[in-house]
Amino acid sequence: MTDDSSSRRRVAPAPGAGTLLQLLRDGVPRTRSELAAITGLARSTVTGRVDALLAAGLIAPSGETASTGGRPPATFAFNPAARIVIGADLGATHARLAVTDLAGTVLAASNADIDIALGPKPVLDWVVEASRKILDSAERPHGDLLGIGIGLPGPVEHSTGRAVNPPIMPGWDGFDVPAYVSERLGVPVLVDNDVNIMALGEHFTAWPEHEHLLFIKAATGIGCGIIASGQVYRGAQGAAGDMGHIRVAGADDAQCRCGNTGCLEAVASGAAIAAALTAQGTPARGSIDVVEHARAGSVPALQLIRQAGRDIGEVLAGAVNFFNPSIIVIGGSLALAGDHLIAGVREVIYQRSLPLATGHLRIAAARTGESSGAIGAGVMVIEHALDPSRLDGLIAGEAA
Amino acid sequence: MTDDSSSRRRVAPAPGAGTLLQLLRDGVPRTRSELAAITGLARSTVTGRVDALLAAGLIAPSGETASTGGRPPATFAFNPAARIVIGADLGATHARLAVTDLAGTVLAASNADIDIALGPKPVLDWVVEASRKILDSAERPHGDLLGIGIGLPGPVEHSTGRAVNPPIMPGWDGFDVPAYVSERLGVPVLVDNDVNIMALGEHFTAWPEHEHLLFIKAATGIGCGIIASGQVYRGAQGAAGDMGHIRVAGADDAQCRCGNTGCLEAVASGAAIAAALTAQGTPARGSIDVVEHARAGSVPALQLIRQAGRDIGEVLAGAVNFFNPSIIVIGGSLALAGDHLIAGVREVIYQRSLPLATGHLRIAAARTGESSGAIGAGVMVIEHALDPSRLDGLIAGEAA
Repeated sequence: MTDDSSSRRRVAPAPGAGTLLQLLRDGVPRTRSELAAITGLARSTVTGRVDALLAAGLIAPSGETASTGGRPPATFAFNPAARIVIGADLGATHARLAVTDLAGTVLAASNADIDIALGPKPVLDWVVEASRKILDSAERPHGDLLGIGIGLPGPVEHSTGRAVNPPIMPGWDGFDVPAYVSERLGVPVLVDNDVNIMALGEHFTAWPEHEHLLFIKAATGIGCGIIASGQVYRGAQGAAGDMGHIRVAGADDAQCRCGNTGCLEAVASGAAIAAALTAQGTPARGSIDVVEHARAGSVPALQLIRQAGRDIGEVLAGAVNFFNPSIIVIGGSLALAGDHLIAGVREVIYQRSLPLATGHLRIAAARTGESSGAIGAGVMVIEHALDPSRLDGLIAGEAA
Repeated sequence: MTDDSSSRRRVAPAPGAGTLLQLLRDGVPRTRSELAAITGLARSTVTGRVDALLAAGLIAPSGETASTGGRPPATFAFNPAARIVIGADLGATHARLAVTDLAGTVLAASNADIDIALGPKPVLDWVVEASRKILDSAERPHGDLLGIGIGLPGPVEHSTGRAVNPPIMPGWDGFDVPAYVSERLGVPVLVDNDVNIMALGEHFTAWPEHEHLLFIKAATGIGCGIIASGQVYRGAQGAAGDMGHIRVAGADDAQCRCGNTGCLEAVASGAAIAAALTAQGTPARGSIDVVEHARAGSVPALQLIRQAGRDIGEVLAGAVNFFNPSIIVIGGSLALAGDHLIAGVREVIYQRSLPLATGHLRIAAARTGESSGAIGAGVMVIEHALDPSRLDGLIAGEAA
C-alpha cells in the first residue's frame, strides 16, 4: 500500500514464483526448462515454484510442445481467469463498478447515481454492497477476489488511501477508505484519484506500448494522470498531475474556486464553460449540458470547447517540455463532443512545445470510454497483487 | 546505453554478483551467510559470486565479525577504490573533468576554457587528451577506468548519445559522441545534457534521501534536471525538463530566440537579465556580469534577479503541481548571487502551488557547487556499470 519507488540501493530478491508468473503474464506458454533458462534458477527450484503456481491456479498446463524424443515436456501459461479483482470509479455524482479477471477483461459491471458529497460511509457502503452483488452475478466465490481498487474524484495520498483536502468531497478528508472497505470485504483495498486510475486503465488496455503517457480528464474539473516508465507516477505526496490549478497565460481575471486567479479550471473546465455559455444566453449547468449543446451545433459551445482545448494545450505545452511524453490521451466528458477539444489541444501544443518533445508526440482521444476508471482501479490491484516481490511472499512452496 | 525504463513485463534475472554488489554498496560489511539470507540464494552460490567479486576487486574482505564459536566468519564490503570513472561537464565556454572512485569521490580534476561552438572534434579531442592526463595524474592504469560520462549544454538523445538541434552547439547536431570518444579511449561512453548530470550529481552527493527531485540550472539559459523515483527521468526522447521555453504569464511581449514569445528564458535567463541591466544603463554581458553587479550591491541587478526567481517560480509552480517533487534544488551561476533568486522562486511557488504538493516541499540551494556536473557525469557511468543486470554479465564465475 506504500507509494513504491525504486531506490538506487534496492536489491532484487531471488526470483520466486511471482517472478515466474510475471514472466508468463505475456501469455506465451513455456516449459520448465525455458523458465529455468530465462530466470537462471535451478531446474529443481523452477519445478517447486511451478507447482506452487499450479496449486494457486495462477498458471495452468497449456498443452505439450515438440521435443527431440520421448514424452514432450509440458508447457505452462498464465491463467488470467484464476482470480478476479473489483474496480470502483467514484465520480462526483456517479459510481461505476467492474469485476475483471487478471487480464483486465470485464466480467460484470454495475453503476449507480450516487453523490460523493453524501460522505464516505454511505458511498463506501454502496461499494461494499455492489461488490457483494457483482461477485454473485459473476458467479465467483469471494475467495477468488484478490482485492478492490477505488478511484476518488479528488487528491488522494496513495500510501494511506485517504483523500487529502478534497474540494468536492465533504467528510472524506483523512477518512481511512482502505480500512473501512477492507473490514467489510476482507480483501486488500487500494485507493487512488480517479485520473490516475483512468490513466492506468487507458495505458493497460489501449496504449501498453507507450511507457510515458499523460491522460487528461477534461470534465467538470481538469486533471492529469501520469504514466512514467510504464507505471503510475504519483510524486512525493501522491499529488502529481494536479494540473487544474496551473496558471494559464492571459487568464488573470478569471477567479478560481481555489482562491487564486487564472487557474486552468477557472477558464477551461466544464463548469467554467457552462458558466460562460449561460452568460452568453445559452443556459448550461455543467459539462454534460455543454456537450449536448455542442452536439446540437451551438456555435458558442463549439467555440468555447475549442478555446478550452487551447487553454488545456497551453498548460500541457509546459508539461510536454517538462515530461516529454510519447502520447497524450484526452478523455473526460468534454472530449465526447467530437474533435473540438482535442483540436484546440493539438493547435497549441504543436505551436508551443519544442521540436524534440513533439517530434514523436501523439495526441489521441481516449479509447476505453466510460469504463476506463473502473478497469484501471482493478488494474491497480492486479499490478499490486502480482508484483513479484509481493507475490513471492503470498505463494507457499517457496524455497531459494 | 539505452534509455532504460522498467516495463510491467520485465523479469528480474536470478540475483548474480551484481545484485550482491548492489547490496554491499551501502558500505555495510556482510558475511556470506548474511548475503545468502538477504538474497535468498544458496550459500554455495553466494560463495561463488563473492569469489568473483573479490577477483574483480569490487569487494574486499573487511575484517571478521563476532561468532558463536570457532573461527569468526569473514565479512566483505564494497571497495569503491576498485575502479574509477571520468565525468566531463562541457559548458558553453568552459569544460570540467573529474576522475572519481565508485563512491563519487573526486580523485583528480581539471578544467579548461574551451568554446563548445568550436564543434565536436576539437572539444572531444580535449576530453580525450584531458582524460589521458588525468588518469596519469591520478596514477591509475587505464584498465581501472569503467567508462566516461559526458554532459553537453543542449538537448541530448540519451539512447544514442547525440545532441539534437542544440541551439548553441554548431556542428554537434547528430554527431556520434559515444563512438568518437570510445574509439579513442576504449571504454563505454554515456552522454546526457548538462542539467541531467548536475541533477544526478546533486542527488547522489547531497540529497540521496529525496527520490523526487527537481534541479534547476539558472545561468545563461534555464534548464531542469528531473530525478523521479531515484533515477534521472528523461522522457520519451530524452527531452524531459526542458523548461526554458515554457510560457510565463504576463511576458507575452518578450521575444525569445526560439521564435516564440513569452518563454521563461526570454525574461529570466542570465542573458535576458544582462540585456535588461544594460538597457537600464548598467552594462552586463551575461550571467557572470549580472552576479558581479548583484554582489556589488546594484539594486537593479538584485531586483532583476529576484524577479527572475519569481518567473522561474511561476513555471515551477506548474511543475510542482504536475510532478509533486519533495525538493527543488536551485543551482547555476545566477544562484551564486546570494538568496535573491531562491527567494523569488519560493515566493511564487508557495503562493501558486497546491497545499498537498507544497506541504512537504523543500526549496534549497545547490550544495555540490561547480563540480556537480562532472561528478554527476561520472555517477551516470557508475550507476550504469554497476547496474546488477549489466554487471552480472560482466563478472565471470557466475552460476545459477
